[in-house]
Amino acid sequence: MDFPIETKRHSYAHLLAQAVKNIYSKEVKLAFWPDTDTWFYYDFDFWDIIIWEEDLKNIEKNLKQLIKQNQRFIRIDKNENWEKFSKDEAIKILKDIKEDYKIEHVNDLFDKYWSSIEISFYENKNQKDEQTFIDLCEWPHVDNSNKLDPNAVKLEKIAWAYWKWDSNNKMLTRIYWLAFDTKEELDSHLKMIEEAKKRDHRILWKKLKLFTLSEKVWAWLPLIQPAWMIVRKAIEDYLWELHKNHWYERVWTPHLAKEDLYITSGHAGHYLEDMFVVHGWTSKEKFHLKPMNCPHHMQIFWDNQFSYRDMPVRYFEPATVYRDEKTGQLSGLTRVRSITQDDWHLFCRVSQIKDEVKLITDIIKEFYTTMWLINDYWVSLSVRWEDKSKYLGSDEVWQQAEWALEEAAIANKLPYKKVEWEAAFYWPKLDFMFKDCIGREWQLATIQCDFNLPNRFELSFKNEEWVDEKPVVIHRAISGSLERFMWILIEHFAWAFPLWLSPRQVCIVPVAPNFYDDAYKLKDLLKKEGILVSVDDSSDSFSKKIRNWEIEKNNYLIVLWEEEVKNNSISLRDVRRKTQENLSFDDFIKKLKNEINLKSL
Amino acid sequence: MDFPIETKRHSYAHLLAQAVKNIYSKEVKLAFWPDTDTWFYYDFDFWDIIIWEEDLKNIEKNLKQLIKQNQRFIRIDKNENWEKFSKDEAIKILKDIKEDYKIEHVNDLFDKYWSSIEISFYENKNQKDEQTFIDLCEWPHVDNSNKLDPNAVKLEKIAWAYWKWDSNNKMLTRIYWLAFDTKEELDSHLKMIEEAKKRDHRILWKKLKLFTLSEKVWAWLPLIQPAWMIVRKAIEDYLWELHKNHWYERVWTPHLAKEDLYITSGHAGHYLEDMFVVHGWTSKEKFHLKPMNCPHHMQIFWDNQFSYRDMPVRYFEPATVYRDEKTGQLSGLTRVRSITQDDWHLFCRVSQIKDEVKLITDIIKEFYTTMWLINDYWVSLSVRWEDKSKYLGSDEVWQQAEWALEEAAIANKLPYKKVEWEAAFYWPKLDFMFKDCIGREWQLATIQCDFNLPNRFELSFKNEEWVDEKPVVIHRAISGSLERFMWILIEHFAWAFPLWLSPRQVCIVPVAPNFYDDAYKLKDLLKKEGILVSVDDSSDSFSKKIRNWEIEKNNYLIVLWEEEVKNNSISLRDVRRKTQENLSFDDFIKKLKNEINLKSL
Repeated sequence: MDFPIETKRHSYAHLLAQAVKNIYSKEVKLAFWPDTDTWFYYDFDFWDIIIWEEDLKNIEKNLKQLIKQNQRFIRIDKNENWEKFSKDEAIKILKDIKEDYKIEHVNDLFDKYWSSIEISFYENKNQKDEQTFIDLCEWPHVDNSNKLDPNAVKLEKIAWAYWKWDSNNKMLTRIYWLAFDTKEELDSHLKMIEEAKKRDHRILWKKLKLFTLSEKVWAWLPLIQPAWMIVRKAIEDYLWELHKNHWYERVWTPHLAKEDLYITSGHAGHYLEDMFVVHGWTSKEKFHLKPMNCPHHMQIFWDNQFSYRDMPVRYFEPATVYRDEKTGQLSGLTRVRSITQDDWHLFCRVSQIKDEVKLITDIIKEFYTTMWLINDYWVSLSVRWEDKSKYLGSDEVWQQAEWALEEAAIANKLPYKKVEWEAAFYWPKLDFMFKDCIGREWQLATIQCDFNLPNRFELSFKNEEWVDEKPVVIHRAISGSLERFMWILIEHFAWAFPLWLSPRQVCIVPVAPNFYDDAYKLKDLLKKEGILVSVDDSSDSFSKKIRNWEIEKNNYLIVLWEEEVKNNSISLRDVRRKTQENLSFDDFIKKLKNEINLKSL
Repeated sequence: MDFPIETKRHSYAHLLAQAVKNIYSKEVKLAFWPDTDTWFYYDFDFWDIIIWEEDLKNIEKNLKQLIKQNQRFIRIDKNENWEKFSKDEAIKILKDIKEDYKIEHVNDLFDKYWSSIEISFYENKNQKDEQTFIDLCEWPHVDNSNKLDPNAVKLEKIAWAYWKWDSNNKMLTRIYWLAFDTKEELDSHLKMIEEAKKRDHRILWKKLKLFTLSEKVWAWLPLIQPAWMIVRKAIEDYLWELHKNHWYERVWTPHLAKEDLYITSGHAGHYLEDMFVVHGWTSKEKFHLKPMNCPHHMQIFWDNQFSYRDMPVRYFEPATVYRDEKTGQLSGLTRVRSITQDDWHLFCRVSQIKDEVKLITDIIKEFYTTMWLINDYWVSLSVRWEDKSKYLGSDEVWQQAEWALEEAAIANKLPYKKVEWEAAFYWPKLDFMFKDCIGREWQLATIQCDFNLPNRFELSFKNEEWVDEKPVVIHRAISGSLERFMWILIEHFAWAFPLWLSPRQVCIVPVAPNFYDDAYKLKDLLKKEGILVSVDDSSDSFSKKIRNWEIEKNNYLIVLWEEEVKNNSISLRDVRRKTQENLSFDDFIKKLKNEINLKSL
């Protein structure tokens, strides 16, 4: 049996900690090791030892030796009946192995809502000398480290971070690492990182003034500057254009709701600690900032008396939701707390699921074809894992939903793979995986089939016999989080956006101040045609001007000199294609509008 | 001297309380008497006395007698030096006159931020027998009740309400009343109320399913249904259309910010108790839902290095803000806690104010001409009142701002009146007052001139000498709150929206089921042309169908019968104009598109 890469990575984490303790001291304390999209890290408290990037080689060497020892991973439960450890029992074990941070973590977990939390441990053993390593862990592991490839792991760099992200706490040493199934995958990832660095939106963002991270607002809530809003509005308008003729309707819902709403939806039981808490003055109610739109949209449906003739009902709301997620660290736009979703919910009959999935799939394909991301995509049908206890809703409802999605995937000839343990706790989904032009894979569009919320919100419509029938809810997003989608696009296009998406379509360059007035006139003419245009009337040297245009990635430059003014003609340079031509004003406008309308690359 | 109507109304409130105590008992306790846009009320605790609408006549009679007694209003201060009452001193006075609710109110005020609050009292005296009435009050009053017209006041109705809107508290008796400068104004207002009742958006809302008030979300936060979103999007798109060619740029900012931001802006000192409080889990910071966009927009400007060549910089964000305002009671959309503003901020040099005000004024006039609200408008230049202590910012800054606005009003030939005591605490403004088609006056557009926030946020740009210069901020809104503007529009048009705003442009009526398929085909054709269209394929009787169309206010009906299907022609009824014609499909589309493009009534 081969194990999923996530499982392997969790086993690598244990071995890394073991290696660190081997080399330095058993007294090194272990802190968190969360995973993020692209890399993993592990925080250690080395006490008075300072380690540097050159020390990583040594740790990596030891880690590889441990892998080769064919260590077994064994889950430690309280007893044979899989009874749960109590808080005190768990803390006793951690005291024995002197893991102070893990003790604090267990206390935190029990202090919050998780009175029902399951605590377990994993042990890995060297088969020769039975030297063991124990760590708090609930995730599945490989059975034996011989399932790991010692050449597919690499310790990447060192950083420092506060315990629990709080500057009042101790500063810990962070080791970043990468692990894959094979050496080839690791190498190709390292190559991709090299290429990605050149396109990194976190560097472009500062150069191009895309957004602002303000300490006074909160560094995790980006404020969007005009240039970026142009791109975002173009994407949003395009999404709406693709849907509006298919009877989707726009709705709007507020950014907060009483806790009641999330008790009804079931999110209160599973999701509370990712939700911001809101209090007002005129009501004693507890509110939350909405972490998703679905419960609100249930209320909008619920307030209508629909009949079978109205079905399907399809809602769209491009709304910002807020999630106080704890994983990861701030890094440009990758882990912000404000997420703008292109959130579409549709309510239909069971018999309509297949056609609706087809309609959505067609739209997804059209959208990603336009974005040049469609090449080599696949679809993950995410279903429940064996342990069905952590999921919301009955077995019957899950089977119905999983089956409906699989049937629709087959009928629509989607290149799908069934993936266990990927489903969210609420319902199964089809996740569309796309590759960008440097080969990174992204989970972007999603179609989720939900027989649960209609029950919880008591939704119904009248069928042909005028009897109440329950609708199915299909949750779907095309771009997913717009923040995330946009930084993927920035890196995908390396900010050289196609004209229809570009915030800097044309820059007019008068070669001397006596052509400035003509430049301003031309600018006004273009502006009236809806073209985004600027005039470079700076007093910079010509070489500095050229550097600026390169940074700004204008699509077109118009050079204005004596001849152009006299002949009323346009001398045009295509920055991305590195071509040049002369044409009349009318032809120029026609050319640009054509390029925008076709949404060509 | 004539007093402003607001001052008169506050004096009427004292006299009303005096009349109630005269007729019933000195033991009747006084609670709140806030003002709202269109009516006033006063809450009383009558103990075991129950009063009914017919009792109002008697109270009104006594109130009118009191007015005729030429009562003097006298401010009671602690001493001749206008020293402030301490909390204990104020409560002692209230204990003497046994006003328990006012005592609680004073405690509340001191408990919150208002350690600096000024407590004062007003006394009114009957000149004959020196019978006096004392109430807690800080507002100016008329000097003598002979400035009030006993025929211009009317007690309107009775209601019941909980003390402080909390159902755990005692139920109080509420008396609604109206007061004007003259009897004519009162009569015309009563007539207007009659007309408005027919157009009331609170009745239309339910019939037409415009929005949802959900108990699970919170009844003060409307969820917007599709029909209303169509109108709202049309207005928002039109607003953007009017600005985008004038170099306005869209920005986006999150719905919350750290308290820091509001300490810098100065809102924390004056506005905290209207702001929702937010807490997260990953940060110990205190956040607030944004009650306005300006502080966020200051941060967006601040993060750029602008020069004089970039000025003016103009931002637009149609954003929802949240204010937990305590006045008023829920009544359709008039007092909701979510307010969507078409919020525009522009940053310019002092020398540019005049031209910018002209540009904004032109846009305001164009917008309100399209909305048929321009007739007989005037502009209120709201400046500081004599007591300048309650305003933010120095004297010099206020004079500069007031003068800049007045100069711009003169230069742009605005029909303006200077109004004292109307300015907000932060800066002066030009408020545009429009009358709807039943004569109600609304404060809608606003232009505000602010020399304050640029100081507080340390904004600057480089001038011609490359030295830092401070920009002026102009705050402006065209429609104001979209929620409020839309219910004004609903009542203004009595839901018979012009075609370009209408969510129900065309309804196709096949006269028998054998024309249904032709109707659906026609519907798809119209949909492709971007027309909002439905088919009435209900099994209702023809007379019920006609009633439905009247309620739904479709702009056009297309009746589909044998002949129309055969000839491929359109038999069209114009519901609002009550006309009928036959035309070809192409002519029909041309007619509709023309009407939409011209935004005609």
